[in-house]
Amino acid sequence: MRGFSRDFRDELFELMKWRRDVRHFKTAAIEEAALARCLHAFSLAPSVGLSEPWRILRVDSQAARAKARANFAETNAEALAQYAGDTAENYASLKLAGMDDAPVHLAIFCDDGTTKGKGLGAGTMPEMRRYSVVSAVTLFWLACRAEGLGLGWVSILDADRLSSDLGVSADWSLIGYFCLGYPTQEDDTPELERAGWETRAEALELQKV
Amino acid sequence: MRGFSRDFRDELFELMKWRRDVRHFKTAAIEEAALARCLHAFSLAPSVGLSEPWRILRVDSQAARAKARANFAETNAEALAQYAGDTAENYASLKLAGMDDAPVHLAIFCDDGTTKGKGLGAGTMPEMRRYSVVSAVTLFWLACRAEGLGLGWVSILDADRLSSDLGVSADWSLIGYFCLGYPTQEDDTPELERAGWETRAEALELQKV
Repeated sequence: MRGFSRDFRDELFELMKWRRDVRHFKTAAIEEAALARCLHAFSLAPSVGLSEPWRILRVDSQAARAKARANFAETNAEALAQYAGDTAENYASLKLAGMDDAPVHLAIFCDDGTTKGKGLGAGTMPEMRRYSVVSAVTLFWLACRAEGLGLGWVSILDADRLSSDLGVSADWSLIGYFCLGYPTQEDDTPELERAGWETRAEALELQKV
Repeated sequence: MRGFSRDFRDELFELMKWRRDVRHFKTAAIEEAALARCLHAFSLAPSVGLSEPWRILRVDSQAARAKARANFAETNAEALAQYAGDTAENYASLKLAGMDDAPVHLAIFCDDGTTKGKGLGAGTMPEMRRYSVVSAVTLFWLACRAEGLGLGWVSILDADRLSSDLGVSADWSLIGYFCLGYPTQEDDTPELERAGWETRAEALELQKV
């Protein structure tokens, strides 16, 4: 049996604690070998029926990035209009996207039409395919942080418009748009918490039945 | 900056490689302290707007477990009817649920009605709350494996019926039903692959735009 030491487990929790949703990036390029090491996490990720439904689009061209950026800017403005007063100012100051500075952009999709895995486990809960992609992204996120790379998950987007702009298959649903790069600062407290937006629960509550 | 060594990163990928969806459990109880250490991963997990929408129900009573088991058994029989010949036999032989042996059962939900996080990031993509729960479950999964515990994610279920049977709020959506315990065997190859159901892709494909 492959065992893991107490020291390793402690460091794993340190990694979880220092993982952050990063919005402020250095413009410095990411070493391609480091990126490849992180992306390997996808090949080790769980997926329903072993369907491996993740589809990764590396958004390199200025034209494609400009479309994603405009999508975020317009959707963000609409979102902002829903918050009043200090909350809205807080919200605006969060600078939610590091889209201008991050050297690597990935649009990650779920292929809901894949036949890989023969539909096992996705019949009654078809969302399991999308959940598989989220699990893979989470492993990738940990791998990035362990390499000193920051990842920012952009979800304030019109997903249908982005899929259309990027020309992907109609079967693909957007899981997220991800900015990747070296962070300008490190912190073990989420930016939203530092900005006074929200606090973490003091303890995890479990109910029993 | 909190750095992580090459050795740690190598072991992190070892952990990812040895993480498995476990279906065969010893009936031995799990030490409560070990379970609590693993559950702490939820308190370090990412969530959209810091909404922490995970809701964890520990299913201990025989009555509640029997309802979950019947739900799986009936849904599984329906799923089985969709596969013909050898595929179906394979499917039946996978023994998809360790529900009878696993000492700990958790039903994990997403509270789609939570006001925590003020809706940030979940306006255009409300599924982000559910994705947050999946991310948290993924961290929990790694923590469990690092403790020598196996986790099995049951998704062949009628989610609405289970939610009703367990009496949870109408705002909660089921993310999964999880069996937890010490595995009867260890393997670094998924059971579905060993059973010939499906194979992993040889390499991760990236497209560029």
